[in-house]
Amino acid sequence: MTDAAPGQHMRAEIAEQPQVFAAITARQAEIAQVATVLAERRPRFVLLAARGSSDHAALYAKYLIEVLLELPAGLVSASTTTLYGAKPDLSDVLYLVVSQSGGSPDLIEATRQARLQGALTVAVTNNPTSDLNSAAELSVDIGAGKEIAVAATKTYSATLLSLYLLIDAVRGGHGTDAMDLPALAAEALSTMESPVTEAVARYRYVERMVTTGRGYSSATAAEGALKLAETTYLAARAYSGADLLHGPVAAIDSDTGVVAVTSAGKGGEAMREIVQAVRQRGADVLAVGSAAQDMPASSRIPLPTTAEEVAPILEVLPLQSLALGLSLARGGDPDNPRGLSKVTRTL
Amino acid sequence: MTDAAPGQHMRAEIAEQPQVFAAITARQAEIAQVATVLAERRPRFVLLAARGSSDHAALYAKYLIEVLLELPAGLVSASTTTLYGAKPDLSDVLYLVVSQSGGSPDLIEATRQARLQGALTVAVTNNPTSDLNSAAELSVDIGAGKEIAVAATKTYSATLLSLYLLIDAVRGGHGTDAMDLPALAAEALSTMESPVTEAVARYRYVERMVTTGRGYSSATAAEGALKLAETTYLAARAYSGADLLHGPVAAIDSDTGVVAVTSAGKGGEAMREIVQAVRQRGADVLAVGSAAQDMPASSRIPLPTTAEEVAPILEVLPLQSLALGLSLARGGDPDNPRGLSKVTRTL
Repeated sequence: MTDAAPGQHMRAEIAEQPQVFAAITARQAEIAQVATVLAERRPRFVLLAARGSSDHAALYAKYLIEVLLELPAGLVSASTTTLYGAKPDLSDVLYLVVSQSGGSPDLIEATRQARLQGALTVAVTNNPTSDLNSAAELSVDIGAGKEIAVAATKTYSATLLSLYLLIDAVRGGHGTDAMDLPALAAEALSTMESPVTEAVARYRYVERMVTTGRGYSSATAAEGALKLAETTYLAARAYSGADLLHGPVAAIDSDTGVVAVTSAGKGGEAMREIVQAVRQRGADVLAVGSAAQDMPASSRIPLPTTAEEVAPILEVLPLQSLALGLSLARGGDPDNPRGLSKVTRTL
Repeated sequence: MTDAAPGQHMRAEIAEQPQVFAAITARQAEIAQVATVLAERRPRFVLLAARGSSDHAALYAKYLIEVLLELPAGLVSASTTTLYGAKPDLSDVLYLVVSQSGGSPDLIEATRQARLQGALTVAVTNNPTSDLNSAAELSVDIGAGKEIAVAATKTYSATLLSLYLLIDAVRGGHGTDAMDLPALAAEALSTMESPVTEAVARYRYVERMVTTGRGYSSATAAEGALKLAETTYLAARAYSGADLLHGPVAAIDSDTGVVAVTSAGKGGEAMREIVQAVRQRGADVLAVGSAAQDMPASSRIPLPTTAEEVAPILEVLPLQSLALGLSLARGGDPDNPRGLSKVTRTL
């Protein structure tokens, strides 16, 4: 990779997302077959296990499960199993494990244990022959193709889309709200080009950024902050919009670049007072999303309107491009960040 | 508060923690009465709802519940109820809501809804007459006394201790491992004084800090980062030790101050390779905790040894003091941070 142009893999994989989405929506019926088994088993509770970017995909799935399936759900701490040996009764539990590589040893071990404890285990990965797929009873292949760049981009959005189709199918849906996403992603990549370039210029010298969102878009904010931190070395962290009105807003001042993820819908509407409060502190606010045009922000990256449930699948695109652009503008190479490897090997 | 010496309230409340712990351990039997009801109801799952610092107390409780009670548990997103109107079936669910003020409107509303949906609701607050206490079926009073400083210190540790006593009593325990904490907290406050002063000098000009921990101490890392961000305006974020070996370690370089929370026990032991990896990147690592002496760190704040399950109750003390010291050294006043109010009013 060292003789490649900086960021060329990340750039190519960002651009590939419309085709990846098209391939996934074409497999809706295949994903729905897994959903049929899930629906038959009638789980009472859902646990989600993941690390890194996949943790944010799991957070998105948690909202889908709580709102669309009305099942209580929680993000699991794999270490309670792998470090502390806990053996909870997991009958009636759906254990959904999300890992692009399917190779994290602690997730494999935690999934094996969950299955032994009676959970219905489902692996969502980009590698159908991974050890994690073997450990789980059922699998969903996100089919994003090989990801060369170290920073996850297309595998993240492909995971979200696969999770949406899976969960929607559990309630009998056919993924209708997702079927336009391939076309809308292509439209978004084209229309966002100029506002992303402007945002890169605007934040060229920023030292800290805060991302924020509510509801479904909390996941986008978390993933956006991680992507910025991984690729640019600037200090970036996410706060839920609700927390930002509480304590941590004190950590925002005129030196902070704030990215507010605001999609058309209830989550985006709930962001309005937060954007206002942050602006009143003198902070610069970049609104990203299908409700961006309508927000009292300093600048905006608008996106096409979708059902709120699928908005995070598009929202992450400009944040990936912003991370790529800032990394390059600051002299970095997001394809060769210091110390990053793609598989979490902690056990 | 404006004519008070900077940080005097926060300093006084940090110092008060041994007495607060003594008052709580003296009420073990009272807390165990609530635990008796919990044990009788035999919940299958536990949901935890909280915001801000209390969210980190809830994360600590999640580890206790998963490891000590072997029940699956998840942190709930209140917004799935308050924004999206989800109505999950919560029979057999224990809904534990943690809020120092007991006044957050969205938590009150989410708790009311959870109770209507069949959950056993328990409020853990520092205000026995709060609306949240009325909304929940049962309550635990953390009894920390009035907190004047804006940054939560004694209410955070008091919440952890109350949650430990509650959860330990559900399994029939009498809080034995916690009974020394009042004396050990006094010892810790005294022995940490000089290493905290050194750490303040060392990080006087730092622009970004990363905190990290594994297992129970993940909660300490999260709370430490929030406290630093709230009081000092420096960019601070927490990563689980596992994630730090994966992506985000790339965001750590020689300009980053890393605080590794390392308690004697499995979580601390699992931190050893993480401390090593971070040091190899040229980063400065401050080890905090009862295993600090034993870590390949740049500097250390050792703490008395306790059972690993209760270590987070002591571990947060030096992080609170570090936040206070850095805030003052950098010309701030942690008792008057910009824009901070004590109650989250988001609905």
